[in-house]
Amino acid sequence: MTNARLLSLVACCFSIAACSPSTVTTTSPAPAQIKLEPVGYRPQFGTMWTFDAPPLEYWKKTYGFSPDQAWLDNARLASIRLPNCSAAFVSAKGLILTNHHCVRDCEDAVSPKDTNLVETGYAALSMRDEKKCPGLYVDQLESIENVTQRVNAAVTATAPEVAATQRTRIISQIKKECEDQTKLTCQVVSLYQGGIYSLYRYRRFNDLRIVFAPEELIADFGGDPDNFTYPRWNLDAALLRAYENDKPYAPKHYFRWSKSGPEENELLFVIGNPGSTGRLLTLAQMEFLRDVGYPAQLGGYARALEAYHAVERTDPTAVRRYQNNVFSIENSRKAVIGYRTGLMDSASMSQKRAFENEFRARLASDPKMQAEYGGIYDAVASAQRELGTFDAQRRYRSFGLPQNSGGSRLLTMSGQLVRIAKESALPDAQRLTAFREAGAATIRTALLREQPVDTTYERIAIAAQLSAAKAELQADDPFLVAALDGQTPEQAAATLVSSTRVGDLAFRRSLVEGGEAAVASSVDPMIVLARKIDVMNRDIQSRADRLNAIITANNEKLGRALYAVYGTALPPDATFTLRISDGLASTYPMNGTIAPYKVTFYGLYDRWESFNKQYPFSLPRRWTDHRDRIDLSTPFNFVSTNDIIGGNSGSPIVNRSSEVVGVVFDGNIENVANRFLFQSKTARTVSVHSSAILETLIKMYNANWIADELLGKQ
Amino acid sequence: MTNARLLSLVACCFSIAACSPSTVTTTSPAPAQIKLEPVGYRPQFGTMWTFDAPPLEYWKKTYGFSPDQAWLDNARLASIRLPNCSAAFVSAKGLILTNHHCVRDCEDAVSPKDTNLVETGYAALSMRDEKKCPGLYVDQLESIENVTQRVNAAVTATAPEVAATQRTRIISQIKKECEDQTKLTCQVVSLYQGGIYSLYRYRRFNDLRIVFAPEELIADFGGDPDNFTYPRWNLDAALLRAYENDKPYAPKHYFRWSKSGPEENELLFVIGNPGSTGRLLTLAQMEFLRDVGYPAQLGGYARALEAYHAVERTDPTAVRRYQNNVFSIENSRKAVIGYRTGLMDSASMSQKRAFENEFRARLASDPKMQAEYGGIYDAVASAQRELGTFDAQRRYRSFGLPQNSGGSRLLTMSGQLVRIAKESALPDAQRLTAFREAGAATIRTALLREQPVDTTYERIAIAAQLSAAKAELQADDPFLVAALDGQTPEQAAATLVSSTRVGDLAFRRSLVEGGEAAVASSVDPMIVLARKIDVMNRDIQSRADRLNAIITANNEKLGRALYAVYGTALPPDATFTLRISDGLASTYPMNGTIAPYKVTFYGLYDRWESFNKQYPFSLPRRWTDHRDRIDLSTPFNFVSTNDIIGGNSGSPIVNRSSEVVGVVFDGNIENVANRFLFQSKTARTVSVHSSAILETLIKMYNANWIADELLGKQ
Repeated sequence: MTNARLLSLVACCFSIAACSPSTVTTTSPAPAQIKLEPVGYRPQFGTMWTFDAPPLEYWKKTYGFSPDQAWLDNARLASIRLPNCSAAFVSAKGLILTNHHCVRDCEDAVSPKDTNLVETGYAALSMRDEKKCPGLYVDQLESIENVTQRVNAAVTATAPEVAATQRTRIISQIKKECEDQTKLTCQVVSLYQGGIYSLYRYRRFNDLRIVFAPEELIADFGGDPDNFTYPRWNLDAALLRAYENDKPYAPKHYFRWSKSGPEENELLFVIGNPGSTGRLLTLAQMEFLRDVGYPAQLGGYARALEAYHAVERTDPTAVRRYQNNVFSIENSRKAVIGYRTGLMDSASMSQKRAFENEFRARLASDPKMQAEYGGIYDAVASAQRELGTFDAQRRYRSFGLPQNSGGSRLLTMSGQLVRIAKESALPDAQRLTAFREAGAATIRTALLREQPVDTTYERIAIAAQLSAAKAELQADDPFLVAALDGQTPEQAAATLVSSTRVGDLAFRRSLVEGGEAAVASSVDPMIVLARKIDVMNRDIQSRADRLNAIITANNEKLGRALYAVYGTALPPDATFTLRISDGLASTYPMNGTIAPYKVTFYGLYDRWESFNKQYPFSLPRRWTDHRDRIDLSTPFNFVSTNDIIGGNSGSPIVNRSSEVVGVVFDGNIENVANRFLFQSKTARTVSVHSSAILETLIKMYNANWIADELLGKQ
Repeated sequence: MTNARLLSLVACCFSIAACSPSTVTTTSPAPAQIKLEPVGYRPQFGTMWTFDAPPLEYWKKTYGFSPDQAWLDNARLASIRLPNCSAAFVSAKGLILTNHHCVRDCEDAVSPKDTNLVETGYAALSMRDEKKCPGLYVDQLESIENVTQRVNAAVTATAPEVAATQRTRIISQIKKECEDQTKLTCQVVSLYQGGIYSLYRYRRFNDLRIVFAPEELIADFGGDPDNFTYPRWNLDAALLRAYENDKPYAPKHYFRWSKSGPEENELLFVIGNPGSTGRLLTLAQMEFLRDVGYPAQLGGYARALEAYHAVERTDPTAVRRYQNNVFSIENSRKAVIGYRTGLMDSASMSQKRAFENEFRARLASDPKMQAEYGGIYDAVASAQRELGTFDAQRRYRSFGLPQNSGGSRLLTMSGQLVRIAKESALPDAQRLTAFREAGAATIRTALLREQPVDTTYERIAIAAQLSAAKAELQADDPFLVAALDGQTPEQAAATLVSSTRVGDLAFRRSLVEGGEAAVASSVDPMIVLARKIDVMNRDIQSRADRLNAIITANNEKLGRALYAVYGTALPPDATFTLRISDGLASTYPMNGTIAPYKVTFYGLYDRWESFNKQYPFSLPRRWTDHRDRIDLSTPFNFVSTNDIIGGNSGSPIVNRSSEVVGVVFDGNIENVANRFLFQSKTARTVSVHSSAILETLIKMYNANWIADELLGKQ
């Protein structure tokens, strides 16, 4: 099943250039260029702190907690990063704790022919039995060096394109020098949209073996409906072991295992790699998402869902066939509704407005700052406003992008077939953004794969998309004229679907391989339509790309301005690099009552029985046959106020004594809104409780040897 | 603990004149005076059907269910009414099922000296052991007769006051005749605000004995926080037995017990006595509540809560002392927020507006109807508008009413002391509404009871109330001038609290017993203030009373008009008389995921453990010591889409086969909003599952003899 939790991590990974790490080795940051008096912490920006600027004063004031450098170094070095997830060393012999959903591919890869370990679960009988995960690695952050001055010194041009090239060049150079000198993996991380450049040096471990992973049904209990929610019962945990030279690696730094887990209201830290947040966006950008971008996205989801349900009404067997598609769209919709809910919260938006007004006043009070940064907000607002004036036209013309095809696979593929041919012929820099580099390769692979096309569904989905266009666009809009060709949306959809061959793999291959010439000469009606649309799309998309470039450039200036004024009192937006976030294990108001800070195995069996044991609330045999072995009062999942987002999956959550009390795997529904504006009144991080993992290892898997190792008894 | 669930029932009982039943004996309804074509069912009006107009067509169309008259008669006669609750016969020997919270007073009364049965729970060892509940009775609805024509024929006057007197007289006469002739208990029920008058004849049972009631901790598990919510684990059930001539009564009609309870999506009926709904109110009335009435009420709750919390910050021992007050206010606030949430829902309000427009158009299409009813909406809207112009002034001047005293007991009592003296001297009809008849007696009793007064709390609460008045009123408002007397709110509060003797019972008694003369000569500063306020209050309150009388009169006309146009296709507002509501046992979207239609004993122990066994999530000894006796997969509570409100507590919920599958005890948080506009997408009725009651009787109380009787084995 497609899982939005996974998707959001993948998305984070694709959207962040920093995804395959790179960078270097000293630790004292260069003095930040602060122009005005620095000011204190603002809750709306959250608590994703970097390790070179831990907020010691704020922690001391808030919690009476003053960790020393050894505590911080241990936290940093015991925490590691998987390609898409976070993780931590949790034993003296190199055991690594992360999420089940982070090692699913490894489980798949190491499964014997006749068994699917993802389904059956796995616990090694001994070290010998541990299975190597092909291609998997982790990175451990050895050191951070502030290289802002060196980067800035190398960027001498004022023309943005030249400056960007200079920046890319110096960053590559710093990375290469670092890797040559240290043999480590190096990455130059841009924080505050260029306010700071930091060189991160990682030690990489390439030999990881799977030690324990429970069945997917228990790891993902409740499936898509329960995704992003709490109370929750997911044993979303797994153990790997790092090897060096074919021997278990003995880390100097690891988190000891907490047998009892967190107390209520205990101070906890999440140390992991949050992927992407938008907290430094301007109010104008947030309003655009709230009023234009997200509503359009939600409209597309609604049309796709309605099309599935329309097919289901005439064909009951379709319910099962479409279940995963429907769940997956509902899950994406859940996330977007969550983002938008945050932006619709007038209290949060007022805080944002108040902050922006205060910050603009501060800039205005310093002529030099005002000259350099004073125009940022107006420039962004004006570009957003202009984007809004033609967003609908642009959206309907760009149906080569799945999110703009209203759920129609045929629309998506015909758009892609035409565009990939045309764009591939251009130099990379001149292509439309979605068709550059890796993007184009992914699209090509998808086009050359067998893809089932349900013509009933397609007819309904395309008709719905055309009806929506008709409702949103002027009657003489060239897209409408071309797509409808004088027919009703239903007629046009029926004509297109019945006569196109885009659903046929051989036909698609002939176009992909035939390139521009093959596409240009095709008489397939959907290809003919896509060709017409492509011409009008290119103009409008280029105009949008230009405006988005203005916004990006001003966001970068804004990041620098914020850093100049507030320094590290405000944590930078997430960059899929190591952060430490503080929080409390605490209850919260929910559904008219209180959600407890923890739930127990009792609740797992309650939810299983309550839904009559039906998927996704079904349980593996082991868990139903042997439930009497378990102490049902053992805590299972728990929540805390730590600040997380996609990429934090698998993060250790630890107490003041550096003991790991659990592993982070999700947020509650209120946490989704935290992408833009952080609040901890109801938003919570959801973790697997350390006791639940022990109980499972001992009672369900008879894997006492692993439990003993976690408890330091071996 | 004060419990808003109980309060809402009490409120229903006091607010409805029909509370001590009365009325008579034939069954064919007189033809309704339908002027226009009748039109169909509108979901927003809900499903509280009367037994003389069951919606047979709608049930057949919606569920394919066509009960015969015998089914309906059995449902009516097996269902009975307690003074504040609903109930049902559930065995051949007269066992009665209702809620624990409906028999709490009886348990208290029959407790032996050294044991509190409310705490310990009780199950009779045999019939001999059943204990008589002093003063308790139930009424069984024998028959319904439409007496509209007789009532209307007797009302010949056009002047409203004279017409009201004529109506009261004929209603008393019908009731008396009925009781003389039949020896039954009779009641004339006004439905559709006077659209129909129905004579209800009841057989009364005066000898009720308690058979089984579990411990309050398990009946009310989760206490105030979980009140009005779901998922839920309340064993809020009890069994009584009806006796006649000291022998168990053998009812001809009773519901057989369902051993397995409801299936998911099964059709179920709730038969009970909903207290009060406001679905026939006009949009203008609903908007007034949403924009003026409820916000003011919420402001008062907020100030009272803030005052408690302010005391708690300086005195940690106060947390425990105020726990019940705080819970109780939070619970009332939960209800009001729920009501208001419904009124803030733009989709529901649009439906309401659409209905009103349609109905007004229908009236306008008939000149005779238009002449009689055309002015209703404008008259109500204009009166509401005028009420809005002086609502704040009226509210602050009427602090003899607890809801207008911002949580201050001293303000409430001083206002009451002055007014009760003055109003008691007037003929009843000339008194301010709150001080007539029963109301005055209740106030007098409260004044003559020892009432602890916390001066720290009072100072803060009064200062907050005066500050709120200062913010809302003009500076020269006579209330402000009198109350502040040139001081700040804090100074004025401190002066009043330190020098008044209103907290002293002996002082209050001297004023109550001394009457007007004693009050007039008092120099106590709070009494002096209350005297001044009383003068200005009387004028403004009389003006409000006059406007409210206009609204009431027009509401009555509206009820008649609606009935004339729609007949019984729309059920009448609730009147604490017998109704039957259809619904399905179904899951619903909640908290980003799905709430199951049922929960099990597993979940009870999960919630107990999750909150570390702390009150109100603690459990009685029996339930912790013997939990291994229980089959934890037994269903506990379940939800359905039936339409209920306060007064429905204890209602049987039965299936098509007339088996009782549970007992209704609450609604979920979304159901609270249904007071004005019914919706069944997320609103649910919450019931105790029939299996949970059996499991408890057998495994926890060893009361197999009772379980066997329920199952018809004895």
